[in-house]
Amino acid sequence: MKTNDSVLHIGLVGLGNRGQELLKLALLGRDNVKIACVCDVYEDRVQAAVDLIEQMDGYRPLGVTSYEQMLIQKPDAVVIATPWETHIPFAIAAMKANIPVGCEVGGATSLDECWQLVHTYEETHTPCMLLENCCFGQDELMVLHMVRQGLFGEVVHCEGGYRHDLREEICFGEENRHYRLRHYKNRSGENYPTHELGPIAKVLRINRGNRMVSLTSTASCARGLNAYAKEKRGEHDLLATYPFAQGDVVTTVIRCAHGETITLTLDTTLPRPYSRGFHVQGTKGMYEEANRSVFLPDSGIPYEFHNASEYRERFDHPMWKRFVKDGVRGGHGGMDGLVFDAFFAALQQGKPMPIDVYDMAAWMSITPLSEQSIACGSMPVAIPDFTSGAWCSRGEEEEWAYSLTQGKE
Amino acid sequence: MKTNDSVLHIGLVGLGNRGQELLKLALLGRDNVKIACVCDVYEDRVQAAVDLIEQMDGYRPLGVTSYEQMLIQKPDAVVIATPWETHIPFAIAAMKANIPVGCEVGGATSLDECWQLVHTYEETHTPCMLLENCCFGQDELMVLHMVRQGLFGEVVHCEGGYRHDLREEICFGEENRHYRLRHYKNRSGENYPTHELGPIAKVLRINRGNRMVSLTSTASCARGLNAYAKEKRGEHDLLATYPFAQGDVVTTVIRCAHGETITLTLDTTLPRPYSRGFHVQGTKGMYEEANRSVFLPDSGIPYEFHNASEYRERFDHPMWKRFVKDGVRGGHGGMDGLVFDAFFAALQQGKPMPIDVYDMAAWMSITPLSEQSIACGSMPVAIPDFTSGAWCSRGEEEEWAYSLTQGKE
Repeated sequence: MKTNDSVLHIGLVGLGNRGQELLKLALLGRDNVKIACVCDVYEDRVQAAVDLIEQMDGYRPLGVTSYEQMLIQKPDAVVIATPWETHIPFAIAAMKANIPVGCEVGGATSLDECWQLVHTYEETHTPCMLLENCCFGQDELMVLHMVRQGLFGEVVHCEGGYRHDLREEICFGEENRHYRLRHYKNRSGENYPTHELGPIAKVLRINRGNRMVSLTSTASCARGLNAYAKEKRGEHDLLATYPFAQGDVVTTVIRCAHGETITLTLDTTLPRPYSRGFHVQGTKGMYEEANRSVFLPDSGIPYEFHNASEYRERFDHPMWKRFVKDGVRGGHGGMDGLVFDAFFAALQQGKPMPIDVYDMAAWMSITPLSEQSIACGSMPVAIPDFTSGAWCSRGEEEEWAYSLTQGKE
Repeated sequence: MKTNDSVLHIGLVGLGNRGQELLKLALLGRDNVKIACVCDVYEDRVQAAVDLIEQMDGYRPLGVTSYEQMLIQKPDAVVIATPWETHIPFAIAAMKANIPVGCEVGGATSLDECWQLVHTYEETHTPCMLLENCCFGQDELMVLHMVRQGLFGEVVHCEGGYRHDLREEICFGEENRHYRLRHYKNRSGENYPTHELGPIAKVLRINRGNRMVSLTSTASCARGLNAYAKEKRGEHDLLATYPFAQGDVVTTVIRCAHGETITLTLDTTLPRPYSRGFHVQGTKGMYEEANRSVFLPDSGIPYEFHNASEYRERFDHPMWKRFVKDGVRGGHGGMDGLVFDAFFAALQQGKPMPIDVYDMAAWMSITPLSEQSIACGSMPVAIPDFTSGAWCSRGEEEEWAYSLTQGKE
């Protein structure tokens, strides 16, 4: 299968919840994108996806149950939405076949696979992007835009979290063939760092003049899933007393090359409202997602809860200004649409991927590093420099948010 | 000087900002308390305090410039409001003279002085209380009251902070003989842990069936004070380029004996609104100060920002219910009044101090332990058991909030 100038033929692997969501909310209905092939190990999911695509976009893609079969088709790019532990191996296999990769988020299983990812890219130069939708959130981009204009002064501390009550999905998702339970039974660490770390890494120019150098990670006891299973299914449910490895709350503190600190909180097994806890503090002001506020004494806008929205008119990111004008579309409040817009635009224009393999390796490496630190009693562990020194000289031209939007406002 | 049954004669040492505030907002105007003696190394402060007491309460106390002179007077108790580094030495000296102690908050300078504090108490049995006013905050006590009733389920994670823009006081407070600057020039650590840790320690029953076992601490770079001094006094001001030791934001993660985790954030040198970031999460619900909310799915009260106030009628702590009915008085929204009420009541009734030397040593030890961890690259360090094993059996009867309020609602 070959691309013509205007249409990208995509292979989508992984047709569980996220894969189905991507079809509906981010992939189908695009003029310049066709889903040429869909893949999952479960035949019923494959059939359902083929039917969905016919119903929504009017054609039937090829459906396969093996990833190798998909790669043989040579799509113009693959989109990976499989369980976490296959993300990097599947990305590597595609790059080796010279097929560009867009990869859904999750943590790595080892440092070694992060290095393999980087080495494969450096050998093949096949484009590979981590599809971190939260880098495209409206407030995340507004804050980035404000930071780049110097409004917060020098940024010295950021916080973020994946604070999302996933108890039902974890405990009972296996009935839907979900993969989270096995991780919570067996591993303890910051298993989902990129939703919060991605936007922070952009703010702090990680891999572009800065890098993450070390972390500590501390896990609480695991009580949330037991209590939930007991409440929902009674005390004799196997999960009501299962000795889960994963602590309910994992706190990771990262130190960067220029002394900035980042606190990440994974918090997925207790009852709570959703939050990514995005928090940016500089020498002139701060942003706090917890109460949707910007504190900028010099701005003339009074500080109060919810006042972030008052900054939108002046400081919304150009990408979002355009998006709001054109009509927000795509899942997760538009972020899913934007992240794929960026991926496809970079592919079609031959531009650098806005979230590249160095970002992907560094962000995903937090998971195994966090597991190591927890295993050793919160010992500080070094975060590898996956750019092998290039971070000191990689500069503004690599800065995705600006390169994607310059001159387009 | 001797006490009669109804009146306590108090010595107050330290007449800077906090000492003056305590006189006006917590000590004067009480029927059962007289300030018998005031002490400061600065003669002008002593005279001002003597004049203030005459003006407000109608008598002139003795004024001295040496702490030894004050102890010789044998007041019924001393209240210590001096710079941080003298808190524990002054408390020890008073206990050795059999004079009960109420001590203002701050961090310790060494683990050794924490042990000395405990040993001196165990030798003398002189009552000694840390005057942690934030343990008496309305929301802190409401949350504690709700936790004790099981509403949050099993509490597994707490957060707190001392997030207070002190740049003016630190940079220019020396002109008012303030002591913070020397700490920020020379030390780097969690220098003020107890405002947030105190209420959390009560929630988690620290020293009463639980204890803090280890911590890691990470400091950001120090940029806030330089930027502030430069902005206020120009780039040639000495502080505009002073290489401060204290990082702007210090994140400390504590692990407790039963696996609960506590994240503390010291954040005093960047522009920001005040917050203690109090946050309590259990298997059934959570409280979050950042948006003044309670999330309790089973409560029937809808979750939204600011909804904590809707829980007050049902769950306000009995101490606060009474306080609100009688008329809130005292500094810091009433907390200063309540903490002294508790101290004086325990003294006069011969009851255990609600925040005792074991609490004081454990909470204040976080400062030198944090410095050690930071000095060793965020190395985990063990937190001593200052109760020498007694924490396993010290129980409910020691639980101050309940013992102070039982049967009095």
